[in-house]
Amino acid sequence: MERKILLTDTADEPGLIYKITEVCFLHGLNIIKNQEYVATDERRFFMRTYLEGDFNDRFLPEVRRKLGKEADVRLVNEGRKHLVVLVTKEAHCLGDLLMKHYSGTLNATIDAVIGNYDVLRDLVERFDVPFELVSHEGLSREEHCHKVLEAVQKYSPDYVVLAKYMRIITPEFLQAFRNRVINIHHSFLPAFIGAKPYQQAFDRGVKIIGATAHFVTEELDNGPIIEQDVIKVDHNFSADMMARSGRDVERLVLDRALTDVLEDRVFVHGNKTVVFK
Amino acid sequence: MERKILLTDTADEPGLIYKITEVCFLHGLNIIKNQEYVATDERRFFMRTYLEGDFNDRFLPEVRRKLGKEADVRLVNEGRKHLVVLVTKEAHCLGDLLMKHYSGTLNATIDAVIGNYDVLRDLVERFDVPFELVSHEGLSREEHCHKVLEAVQKYSPDYVVLAKYMRIITPEFLQAFRNRVINIHHSFLPAFIGAKPYQQAFDRGVKIIGATAHFVTEELDNGPIIEQDVIKVDHNFSADMMARSGRDVERLVLDRALTDVLEDRVFVHGNKTVVFK
Amino acid sequence: MERKILLTDTADEPGLIYKITEVCFLHGLNIIKNQEYVATDERRFFMRTYLEGDFNDRFLPEVRRKLGKEADVRLVNEGRKHLVVLVTKEAHCLGDLLMKHYSGTLNATIDAVIGNYDVLRDLVERFDVPFELVSHEGLSREEHCHKVLEAVQKYSPDYVVLAKYMRIITPEFLQAFRNRVINIHHSFLPAFIGAKPYQQAFDRGVKIIGATAHFVTEELDNGPIIEQDVIKVDHNFSADMMARSGRDVERLVLDRALTDVLEDRVFVHGNKTVVFK
Amino acid sequence: MERKILLTDTADEPGLIYKITEVCFLHGLNIIKNQEYVATDERRFFMRTYLEGDFNDRFLPEVRRKLGKEADVRLVNEGRKHLVVLVTKEAHCLGDLLMKHYSGTLNATIDAVIGNYDVLRDLVERFDVPFELVSHEGLSREEHCHKVLEAVQKYSPDYVVLAKYMRIITPEFLQAFRNRVINIHHSFLPAFIGAKPYQQAFDRGVKIIGATAHFVTEELDNGPIIEQDVIKVDHNFSADMMARSGRDVERLVLDRALTDVLEDRVFVHGNKTVVFK
Repeated sequence: MERKILLTDTADEPGLIYKITEVCFLHGLNIIKNQEYVATDERRFFMRTYLEGDFNDRFLPEVRRKLGKEADVRLVNEGRKHLVVLVTKEAHCLGDLLMKHYSGTLNATIDAVIGNYDVLRDLVERFDVPFELVSHEGLSREEHCHKVLEAVQKYSPDYVVLAKYMRIITPEFLQAFRNRVINIHHSFLPAFIGAKPYQQAFDRGVKIIGATAHFVTEELDNGPIIEQDVIKVDHNFSADMMARSGRDVERLVLDRALTDVLEDRVFVHGNKTVVFK
Repeated sequence: MERKILLTDTADEPGLIYKITEVCFLHGLNIIKNQEYVATDERRFFMRTYLEGDFNDRFLPEVRRKLGKEADVRLVNEGRKHLVVLVTKEAHCLGDLLMKHYSGTLNATIDAVIGNYDVLRDLVERFDVPFELVSHEGLSREEHCHKVLEAVQKYSPDYVVLAKYMRIITPEFLQAFRNRVINIHHSFLPAFIGAKPYQQAFDRGVKIIGATAHFVTEELDNGPIIEQDVIKVDHNFSADMMARSGRDVERLVLDRALTDVLEDRVFVHGNKTVVFK
Repeated sequence: MERKILLTDTADEPGLIYKITEVCFLHGLNIIKNQEYVATDERRFFMRTYLEGDFNDRFLPEVRRKLGKEADVRLVNEGRKHLVVLVTKEAHCLGDLLMKHYSGTLNATIDAVIGNYDVLRDLVERFDVPFELVSHEGLSREEHCHKVLEAVQKYSPDYVVLAKYMRIITPEFLQAFRNRVINIHHSFLPAFIGAKPYQQAFDRGVKIIGATAHFVTEELDNGPIIEQDVIKVDHNFSADMMARSGRDVERLVLDRALTDVLEDRVFVHGNKTVVFK
Repeated sequence: MERKILLTDTADEPGLIYKITEVCFLHGLNIIKNQEYVATDERRFFMRTYLEGDFNDRFLPEVRRKLGKEADVRLVNEGRKHLVVLVTKEAHCLGDLLMKHYSGTLNATIDAVIGNYDVLRDLVERFDVPFELVSHEGLSREEHCHKVLEAVQKYSPDYVVLAKYMRIITPEFLQAFRNRVINIHHSFLPAFIGAKPYQQAFDRGVKIIGATAHFVTEELDNGPIIEQDVIKVDHNFSADMMARSGRDVERLVLDRALTDVLEDRVFVHGNKTVVFK
């Protein structure tokens, strides 16, 4: 008996749940958990069906035939995905990922870490994970990002994680990894877009700070949000103390977003996400 | 076109979603939202199916025939339920309910408020809601609760809400309103069962306090939990300050629990609840 | 024995706590709680000293003499402040205030409610609080706000609370009530400034929504923030559902901000606040 | 110029702040931050005074002379403390500590990790921290804990951290490290004292789970609480999923508690703590 996840993303119409679950039933597949959502305005239907049983090659084609050509239907295996992590100098998000990779609690393997500085090499290599330096020095943004893309593509990862990678990703890179680049931004977007959000938060005198994990798109800090969380601060917090406290939110938010993505719980829907918890 | 909610609670077996949604489809009913859960250990299946369409009298019997005699299947109308609220002296939870009743945001009408003291009569009557005093003086617990039950039953409410009602409910009452009596307890159960939970919390030196909304059962403070929440406190909080801050958690937790119950999102399952958010 | 609060706001220099507490000690005043904060960048010192004892007329002048002319030192009585509340059509924040006014848990009296529509008159009058309609119809913003100001000034309130008052306040009004007009904005500022923040939040696909209580200044939605809080949402939330859930955050945030202001815990410091919890 | 922290714990009486800050002022010491609390019922005064200046040997004796013999007054240096960490098999809390140790963000050094199993040796040694195995096999609780104590004492740590150490600490050990042994318990105490709290939480059907960091005393799970936090769960969570989600709360709560302890922000006061944030 295997376990697989059937992912359906299609135009809404009556009877979709019935049609899909009928095929499952006729194939003797047991539904462990079924989650669906209809985006009413756009009349779009999303469903995540967690299945158990003996799968044969006719199952997926039959679901597709039931739903028609327009439907985007996928059947994915449960199990570890492959990641490449991009970093700059900050260790906290990367450290969390490496620790979970080491403990086997990440539901993915980190195949490589690529940095535009060398400062995190030592940490990465302590965990027997390859580290590659792709320095940006003397290169245009496009040239550098192209070299990073080449380095990433050697590993054919399922997802690319920006763990406090402080460089802008070019359209070329994003086209190669559409909806597969995940960033952690150190503010509760859309507040404090751009550089130095903790300094901005301090200057504005806010009483909460936060972090946002999102898919990266061509528009800076404006991609589909996967997960957000906040913590309370007060007048005693300097910008540095906000940054320090914020790190814990950043790594937790990135971790939760990744967990959802790696378990195939996240659909991208225009500039939003549907996350089946 | 009407909207109704189909509630299924039955032994788990393969094909349940398919069987139920097939009947919906054949009756031309559109599923706006479908939520299901399987309690694996007990092999119990719960589903809430929010439907739109023209319902005829054969629909529910057909679902029942598909699922067999053991299944507990109900079809409920969307729309306002009827409540009776029991109170003692504290106004904050009651006040919230009255305000939402007044604003029409409660999804229920408060048909009466019954108190064992008269102190809240003035507040209740300002909202044109009947208030009845059923004093406990000179009565045994059983005698008093019996009189309260008689007063409640005149209104045939769907649910009885204990809005800081500081008396124990007798088995006679609970048998008349099985899984229909909702209490707000001023601690995050199972911590601080019994009297004066804020004093207990102060004495123990906790850093969080909370509130719990639950269905009332014969076992004190031990019924199925519907909703809980907490707030942070610190050494500056006296027991009185904890009680004051706790009131906001109490009324919010009761409000959220009631919202879920009134929208038929809550199944009772042994001593637990399944809450389809 | 009386209780009073000494509030100090002055340029930072060594020995301030010593100088102030020495005067307290020599006057036989006991310090129940002392809280201080230095804004390092601006070298500004804030202190809230909660005192108990027999106060005589020489106490405050002596503190002032110790600190010099530049210091802003005030001695305020514990006790109820006076409020005027401005509203438009939404009942939830106003309802919370009225209920606490009624229960005596607000630490203030609501002397009047002024609305630019008449819809909330019935609710207000149920609590025996005067309601005044100052319609904006046919008036320019300046003319209308001037009439509102005249209506407010009849009551000489300590603070003016905008409980979902959906009109912009003019500089004339703000000059009359500098740092004494408190607004509740239905987003976690600085995200979603301006109109329809829940629609903006829905369109952006955020996973948290929030509310912000702040002092009103000439710059829209940009005054000193007193309190903020958030709740989690997900893809199931329409803009309307966000608004509905957001109401609970709005009223709680406004309530907490008011509590702090009414207990003289809030200093305004440039465009920020110092809040001694 | 140095920075030190003056910690005062004494019977409450009028003028304490004045007396202490006078000595500071006369010694030319600048108060960066002063925090005080009076436990009213016990008439006990606590103050944390963060000082900057040139300290000489007469300063502390003068403060002591002012306050009398009964007062417990200490002057501590800012700066890294020394820790020994006890572990069993779970990596997540230890991993967090090692990562912060490595990054230099812990405000302490981990001088050794001692385990009653060998499973975490590999992780610890990757960070160049000594790991010692003190197996409990074949030993009574007292014998084993005595051997652990001997191993710990070689390092003369300031604090001993139980990072998911699943053994009971004996009175002998606690006498050697009174109020210096910090444990992370995987429930929001006092709920779910004892073994398998996540299974208990699952069985009870709670909607929140949490973690508690506390000083260890002779009474199991009943020592002074330093920090607590919770996360929401629902019916979808198995006991295992609660444990998995709970790990993030555990490591955050332990981290926050340690941060406060290491910055000398925590006073123990009977069975409670005063934590100056």
